[in-house]
Amino acid sequence: MREILRVDMSTLQVTREPLPEKWARYGGRALTSAIVYSEVPAGADPLGPENKLVIAPGLLGGTSAPNGGRLSVGAKSPLTGGIKEANSGGTAAHALGKMGIAAIIIEGAPADKTALYALRLFPDGTVDVVRRHDLAGLGAYETVAVAKGIEASEHRMSDKSSFLVIGPSGEMKMKSAGIAVTDPLGHPNRYAGRGGLGAVMGSKGLKLIAIFEEGLKPKQHADKDAFIAAVRKFSGALTTHAVTSQALPTFGTNVLANIINEAGGYPTRNFSSGQFEGVDGISGETMREITVERGGNVKHGCHTGCVIQCSRYYVDEDGHYMTKGPEYESAWSLGANCGIDDMDMVAKLDRKCGEIGIDTIEAGVMLGVYMASGEIAFGDGEAALKALDEIGRGTELGKVLGDGAEATGVKFGVKNIPVVKHQGLPAYDPRPIQGIGVTYATSTMGADHTAGYTITSNVLAVGGTVDPLKPEGQAALSQGLQIATAMLDAMGLCIFVAFAVLDMPEALEAIHEMAAAHTGDDWDVDALMQLGKETLAYERIFNEHAGFTAADDRLPAFFLEEKLPPHDVVFTVTDEELDSVYSFVPEVAEQLGIE
Amino acid sequence: MREILRVDMSTLQVTREPLPEKWARYGGRALTSAIVYSEVPAGADPLGPENKLVIAPGLLGGTSAPNGGRLSVGAKSPLTGGIKEANSGGTAAHALGKMGIAAIIIEGAPADKTALYALRLFPDGTVDVVRRHDLAGLGAYETVAVAKGIEASEHRMSDKSSFLVIGPSGEMKMKSAGIAVTDPLGHPNRYAGRGGLGAVMGSKGLKLIAIFEEGLKPKQHADKDAFIAAVRKFSGALTTHAVTSQALPTFGTNVLANIINEAGGYPTRNFSSGQFEGVDGISGETMREITVERGGNVKHGCHTGCVIQCSRYYVDEDGHYMTKGPEYESAWSLGANCGIDDMDMVAKLDRKCGEIGIDTIEAGVMLGVYMASGEIAFGDGEAALKALDEIGRGTELGKVLGDGAEATGVKFGVKNIPVVKHQGLPAYDPRPIQGIGVTYATSTMGADHTAGYTITSNVLAVGGTVDPLKPEGQAALSQGLQIATAMLDAMGLCIFVAFAVLDMPEALEAIHEMAAAHTGDDWDVDALMQLGKETLAYERIFNEHAGFTAADDRLPAFFLEEKLPPHDVVFTVTDEELDSVYSFVPEVAEQLGIE
Repeated sequence: MREILRVDMSTLQVTREPLPEKWARYGGRALTSAIVYSEVPAGADPLGPENKLVIAPGLLGGTSAPNGGRLSVGAKSPLTGGIKEANSGGTAAHALGKMGIAAIIIEGAPADKTALYALRLFPDGTVDVVRRHDLAGLGAYETVAVAKGIEASEHRMSDKSSFLVIGPSGEMKMKSAGIAVTDPLGHPNRYAGRGGLGAVMGSKGLKLIAIFEEGLKPKQHADKDAFIAAVRKFSGALTTHAVTSQALPTFGTNVLANIINEAGGYPTRNFSSGQFEGVDGISGETMREITVERGGNVKHGCHTGCVIQCSRYYVDEDGHYMTKGPEYESAWSLGANCGIDDMDMVAKLDRKCGEIGIDTIEAGVMLGVYMASGEIAFGDGEAALKALDEIGRGTELGKVLGDGAEATGVKFGVKNIPVVKHQGLPAYDPRPIQGIGVTYATSTMGADHTAGYTITSNVLAVGGTVDPLKPEGQAALSQGLQIATAMLDAMGLCIFVAFAVLDMPEALEAIHEMAAAHTGDDWDVDALMQLGKETLAYERIFNEHAGFTAADDRLPAFFLEEKLPPHDVVFTVTDEELDSVYSFVPEVAEQLGIE
Repeated sequence: MREILRVDMSTLQVTREPLPEKWARYGGRALTSAIVYSEVPAGADPLGPENKLVIAPGLLGGTSAPNGGRLSVGAKSPLTGGIKEANSGGTAAHALGKMGIAAIIIEGAPADKTALYALRLFPDGTVDVVRRHDLAGLGAYETVAVAKGIEASEHRMSDKSSFLVIGPSGEMKMKSAGIAVTDPLGHPNRYAGRGGLGAVMGSKGLKLIAIFEEGLKPKQHADKDAFIAAVRKFSGALTTHAVTSQALPTFGTNVLANIINEAGGYPTRNFSSGQFEGVDGISGETMREITVERGGNVKHGCHTGCVIQCSRYYVDEDGHYMTKGPEYESAWSLGANCGIDDMDMVAKLDRKCGEIGIDTIEAGVMLGVYMASGEIAFGDGEAALKALDEIGRGTELGKVLGDGAEATGVKFGVKNIPVVKHQGLPAYDPRPIQGIGVTYATSTMGADHTAGYTITSNVLAVGGTVDPLKPEGQAALSQGLQIATAMLDAMGLCIFVAFAVLDMPEALEAIHEMAAAHTGDDWDVDALMQLGKETLAYERIFNEHAGFTAADDRLPAFFLEEKLPPHDVVFTVTDEELDSVYSFVPEVAEQLGIE
């Protein structure tokens, strides 16, 4: 029986309760969203004691399911004002899974607003909350370093230790603050980044969560043999599909830079062009060359059980670790979107974001907007570093910039602010790639590529093809992917398994076979899709209660009015089609008995 | 003993309680802000049940104090996210004062979100809450007309009846929705307009508040003779000062159009110029000419006891009432700021706002931003009318526009969005009139000219002169006026008495003499200023708890960077000077025992 660990930060009491039977099939995002829907008033102040930070491994967390160690973090978002699930790699999810924890719910807030705590979970089931004022104001890396030292001195540390931390931006409750999760080598470089959840953690007075799993075993399965068979089937698919077995492990996610640039959908200088003349300087291929030459790590998994291995480290000229190999979205946001074509500068900016503890996407979209204002110039990496430094120091300017792209654009008078539901748009322009525009517009998360990654059929010819330049078929494509993604996020599976799932029927089968063999419950394809739909129904209805209407499911007008070179197209999916994406919700809500 | 009337909209229970002794010297804004500070969590959802709508006459409400019938409405603002007091004329304040009501606190919210109620206060002390679904969706004028019919059929109506109503924008919880208050002839044309308080009323399921005062007498005074003597002194000053005895009664507030245009501070076409070539078409002088020619009313008070008489009606070509004579700020926002130079069109837009129930300032600033986006053209009144109509009908576009200037600017990609704390700037450009920029930047209310009306010394040579083009002395000027204004708002006095108060020592004396003679308490000049400071301390600290920092006490960057013709100046008051304005708060907070 999985348990919920409830931590009341106003009393520092920790309690355990069984996971309610109605949520027995939920994990990850399904659970964070169901809990946020059920326990957080839709009108709650995201930074107030009524909000709750919910941390959940997927249903397959703690098992050997390939790529099954993703972590969901949920709350009401200070950035969007709606529900949020931010998804992270790193080692924490499997650790929680092994502990039998379905979700940690962090609620309330300390009366002393300057109090700073660490929550610690030990392998024997002990949980405590300790004052940790020595960590105040520290960057994410330093926080982990100091915390490791403290724990080592108490003989708590081992290689099997995971940390979730916030940087100064989270302590200062900035809307672009994320939560850093440590990777297998203990670097806090995996991020539940989007939507300001670091600020929610900061509002709880929580600087750090430490999870010690030394000696814990993977979870038992209802049917061990069936589980192993399903794992083999799933692993076989992932290690066969071209994207998951070749492109991603070789070049990392940044393999997309040249591909999306070629497609004319690589947003450049605050979404003013779809191609960047300097893409070669920041592409995945270049990143690999530099890293190989400097002796860096060019392929590893962000968590145990990953068979794709798209992670890598970026190192300085002396071969020392600087930051994780910037993901495609980070290299884009801090690179092309800022007119910066120097991979070392992109890595410096990425590391700076990692220290401060802010979402690299929101940071880069903000910088693009800031540059568009003329306050600093496109291409000026040193000025961008300085701007990030203002955030870390919490200066007056930094408080504006740290609240993200929209706050910065309003302050500095920028015409084109690329946001939906107040959240910055990621690395794919919705004009030449119309499907992703449907996802940006309609996702419960605000502008979020991962919520329904239509790049698959729009660009990569995975799961069929849908012409990216035309409106036809995009709404259905986005809807299907949004449902499937919510399901993957609930299982705790990495979104990249979707490449295989979309092309290889046995991969989808393997997912419900793993779920069934692990839990002993009935699972089939319909049940998987129902899981996705239920997750989205909780989210959509929460957002309706929080005041969102159809008017919020729209792109900013400039995407409909200003043609993007080189294709010279605008976004042409109709409002009616956008409004069709969530048409399944009323029926599912009725099944769930929610409204 | 004054009482608090508490209305719980979740149970429809009405209770009475004595005004706490600690607030015995408070009325109006002092009381709404102290109550909001004390009872509303700073992190509350402005549209949720935790927010409270507080309605309070001033300390002199219900007496014959000249110009003493202003009403304060307070809550946490859905537009700014901070505390809000919106101030209105009309007959309601004196009616509440006569009833001995210090404040109405409307709290909670009906479980049925479609429920719509009227709150009714009768002269015998009875209070009830009745379902009034027949009013759903009606405009403000029609609402009052229907309500009057219902009340007349129940023999409740008389000339001594006041109504507070919301239009459809308030029912739809739009952020520019205001609360209309009826004037002496029963037209709902006086507005507690700013900050979206109509949406707060809508969130309580309250469409209408009716106050019947037939037969009630003015309040008794502790020392009647002294009160009458002080009233004479005050009235004498008001009827002597050139602004309050000549300019305002003759031309109304719109006398300022030519004056501010002449000063180069008349924001034109979304704050892109300080002079409007079409000012003559919408000036107070022109308005008077047209009204006189058509046989309209050209001078009356918005409430009993007004000796200034700046109100007037605007009539159509047949001499029929259209709307109140648009105030200077409305004629500016719907006129010059939109490039519209036709008084009839301005009156149509003003009436439309009045029907929908939205703040004319936010509406005009929004329209200016919308026009700057190129979606509709500057000067196109018909398109502006149509845009307002979208708001009233609650279309998707209307939901964006109805949320005000910032939401519209972000949606439609407008570079220069003139807002502070998310609220649109009023009718004085802060570049050539730097003092008002200090008020916009620092006021607890967001951009608000009434909070510290430096036009006095900056332009009108009232209360001394401070060069409007230079930064020197502006912070001190704004600080003094913000404190004095908070005091006037607490007394329930019209802000226009300040013209006399600033120039004539006997006017200020008369205020504390009226207060002392009416209440029997000690009052002197220091006590008046302390009242203003305490009011601002409650507001400032609430805003700090709600997350505002020094970064929020700033103008958008374009006011510091883009020179405004004809003076070609930018705003040059330093951040340090802005930060000095509220330097008095810590000491006052300590005296109050608040933090």
